[in-house]
Amino acid sequence: MELMREAKKGNVTEAMQIVATDELIDVYLLMERIADGEAVILKNNLHKSVQPVGIGKGLRTKVNANIGTSTDSTDIHLEIEKARTAVHAGADTIMDLSTGGDINQIRKTILDQIPVVLGTVPIYQSAIQSIQTSGALVKMDADDIFSVLEKQAEEGVDFFTVHCGVTLRSIERLRREDRLMDIVSRGGSFLVTWMIANEKENPLYEQYDRVLEIAAKYDIVLSLGDGLRPGSILDATDRAQVEELIILGELTERARDRNVQVIIEGPGHVPLNQIKMNVQLEKEICHNAPFYVLGPLVTDVAPGYDHITSAIGGAIAAAEGADFLCYVTPGEHLKLPDCEDVRQGVIATRIAGHAADIVKGIPNAIDWDIEMSKARKQLDWDTQISHAIDPEHARKLREMCKSNDDDICSMCGEYCAIKMVQETLRHVK
Amino acid sequence: MELMREAKKGNVTEAMQIVATDELIDVYLLMERIADGEAVILKNNLHKSVQPVGIGKGLRTKVNANIGTSTDSTDIHLEIEKARTAVHAGADTIMDLSTGGDINQIRKTILDQIPVVLGTVPIYQSAIQSIQTSGALVKMDADDIFSVLEKQAEEGVDFFTVHCGVTLRSIERLRREDRLMDIVSRGGSFLVTWMIANEKENPLYEQYDRVLEIAAKYDIVLSLGDGLRPGSILDATDRAQVEELIILGELTERARDRNVQVIIEGPGHVPLNQIKMNVQLEKEICHNAPFYVLGPLVTDVAPGYDHITSAIGGAIAAAEGADFLCYVTPGEHLKLPDCEDVRQGVIATRIAGHAADIVKGIPNAIDWDIEMSKARKQLDWDTQISHAIDPEHARKLREMCKSNDDDICSMCGEYCAIKMVQETLRHVK
Repeated sequence: MELMREAKKGNVTEAMQIVATDELIDVYLLMERIADGEAVILKNNLHKSVQPVGIGKGLRTKVNANIGTSTDSTDIHLEIEKARTAVHAGADTIMDLSTGGDINQIRKTILDQIPVVLGTVPIYQSAIQSIQTSGALVKMDADDIFSVLEKQAEEGVDFFTVHCGVTLRSIERLRREDRLMDIVSRGGSFLVTWMIANEKENPLYEQYDRVLEIAAKYDIVLSLGDGLRPGSILDATDRAQVEELIILGELTERARDRNVQVIIEGPGHVPLNQIKMNVQLEKEICHNAPFYVLGPLVTDVAPGYDHITSAIGGAIAAAEGADFLCYVTPGEHLKLPDCEDVRQGVIATRIAGHAADIVKGIPNAIDWDIEMSKARKQLDWDTQISHAIDPEHARKLREMCKSNDDDICSMCGEYCAIKMVQETLRHVK
Repeated sequence: MELMREAKKGNVTEAMQIVATDELIDVYLLMERIADGEAVILKNNLHKSVQPVGIGKGLRTKVNANIGTSTDSTDIHLEIEKARTAVHAGADTIMDLSTGGDINQIRKTILDQIPVVLGTVPIYQSAIQSIQTSGALVKMDADDIFSVLEKQAEEGVDFFTVHCGVTLRSIERLRREDRLMDIVSRGGSFLVTWMIANEKENPLYEQYDRVLEIAAKYDIVLSLGDGLRPGSILDATDRAQVEELIILGELTERARDRNVQVIIEGPGHVPLNQIKMNVQLEKEICHNAPFYVLGPLVTDVAPGYDHITSAIGGAIAAAEGADFLCYVTPGEHLKLPDCEDVRQGVIATRIAGHAADIVKGIPNAIDWDIEMSKARKQLDWDTQISHAIDPEHARKLREMCKSNDDDICSMCGEYCAIKMVQETLRHVK
């Protein structure tokens, strides 16, 4: 039985129990939120070896790392290494966005070897197979799309990005909008190209019940994609973006009726003063479905540092209620990430998520900062390093610049404020 | 005549004209804001070769980079190299916080060789000289403090951090507070140690008129320091911090009466949901004096990545009205920065400042993003790189992973969304 159906019936499942224990949340509260669609649990019912991941209200903000080949970089071993790096750095989920090399083999290897829940964007494989077998994306038909969904579902993929809100009408809205960047979603661009060439509606929208059927069968969470998300802060929150969000809101209701769990994907590129509004809008329009944001990047001018532009936006979004952050690597807009980019992207995004969890009141989030501050006051370097978000990196920096005095660091040397004040206060207390 | 006195009389000076032209702001509006203390111009009237820097309402958010030796690292050449790196990366101002080696020589060399306005924290030198000559910090007297202020002023230092708000009363408040981290400001800790040992009031507070006299003579901007700033997000916005801010507000009024320009230093470590309030509080209590924040860091758990934790806080603070951001380097809390840390710190802080300037409505700020987005849409890589916040770094990443096709990047390879959609729309338009 689907998890959401169980929740609606008031049944606590093993997955709910695992998530509730892990997150220090009452399992009945979690169950109610799953029933209402305010929280979801990622786990394909055929993906046996994997720990279920909860996303939504009252749960820790989760971090996703995208990996995957492109036509220019098809090394499967490198992708597995990137996935391992992401998990080691603390990513909660992985998405395989491969578009080059043996896509089936890469996904199967990840499912076999990487012990975290996995997401994909099945339209990539449908489009690429069509290009490879019939010579053109536009020759793809609906069955090509659904057979890939079915195949990946059977293999155990836990969540699918499906761009069901890219419709003929939302494309028309986009055209009237005169955007700076048009479409920057790859899934969105595959679909728009196909729809315009064939003068047909998006099969993922038109045959949404088929999507729901597959998702329900395997308990796959649908991540309703934002194919029309802005690719420049100038395009943020325009009519095309909001039209698509409205459609996703309607599709959320249909999914809930069918006991399919849904999360909503969001922008993208958003200036600082529109982030809160975007989160509120999603929560209203989609009746509190968990919000999964990519960034958002708060400026377009920093290619090479987009883990930082998106950590800024991600922290604000999560503090306002976004539930799931997709990492952005430093080289986004310039190149496919390597392992070091993956590590930097995961850590920056975890920083954003944790800073938000503190103010969201997530159980125990602030305790981490308390422990670190206590260790800092006591000049207890071992604890500072073991509690650091990236202990290996912190240790490396500490080793590089040890002070002559073991108590302190090279920043202040012997004029360490903490040490001075402790000695002063000790005298007078 | 002091710049503020000129402004109050309605006289436009050369420095005002330079700043107004550079910032695309009406010079009379700028003049009024200087008269009211809402904006300041950093430039010692003896520091001839340097471009004046405006800070405050309606002006671009500025970025400061701290450099300087410590007792563990006294290489003057390295510090000059760090200052050059900071300027090359786009820092607007430099502060020399040296506490090791030949402090006089370092400062003079920076003033000679680095063509940006310079700030210092003179109490460092007073304290260290006292330790070196009389064997103890506590033997320092008021004249030791003021002779250093006078000396550095004559040399051309443009702004001074003076911790005038650390008083016997604010220390008493701190004691009653039971903070996690007590005092983390080095200047604050020197003063508190001296005050407690000598049972005397802070000379920078008690003899504040002497401070004003020196500042007025050379047109030095006073950066009223926050010696009691929180060193953990748990300590943010406590009574000790706010007590000190109230004192700084009173001292701001006294400075304005004497035609001394003032900016206010702020925290530090602040959780996401207290940043806006901290900016509003400073603007109210200090009657719109420009706000100069260090970070703020939004979590304590990321030593090694504190340029990111502080870019998050800095972006929010600046968007809410903070005017001047002090960078934090990745290794803050672990080690003295090297040149690479300096570069990373400046770029992260510039990202925060620029993201804020877009929403502050600073003239032309958004144009940068428009140009970048247009270049991105046109797949014009040369312009994307030349317009990047760090063109050398962007070029390096682009070169590392060039696609087989010059138009695109290795991220999407041949399935570039931008390219696909352009071709699709070209067909149907």
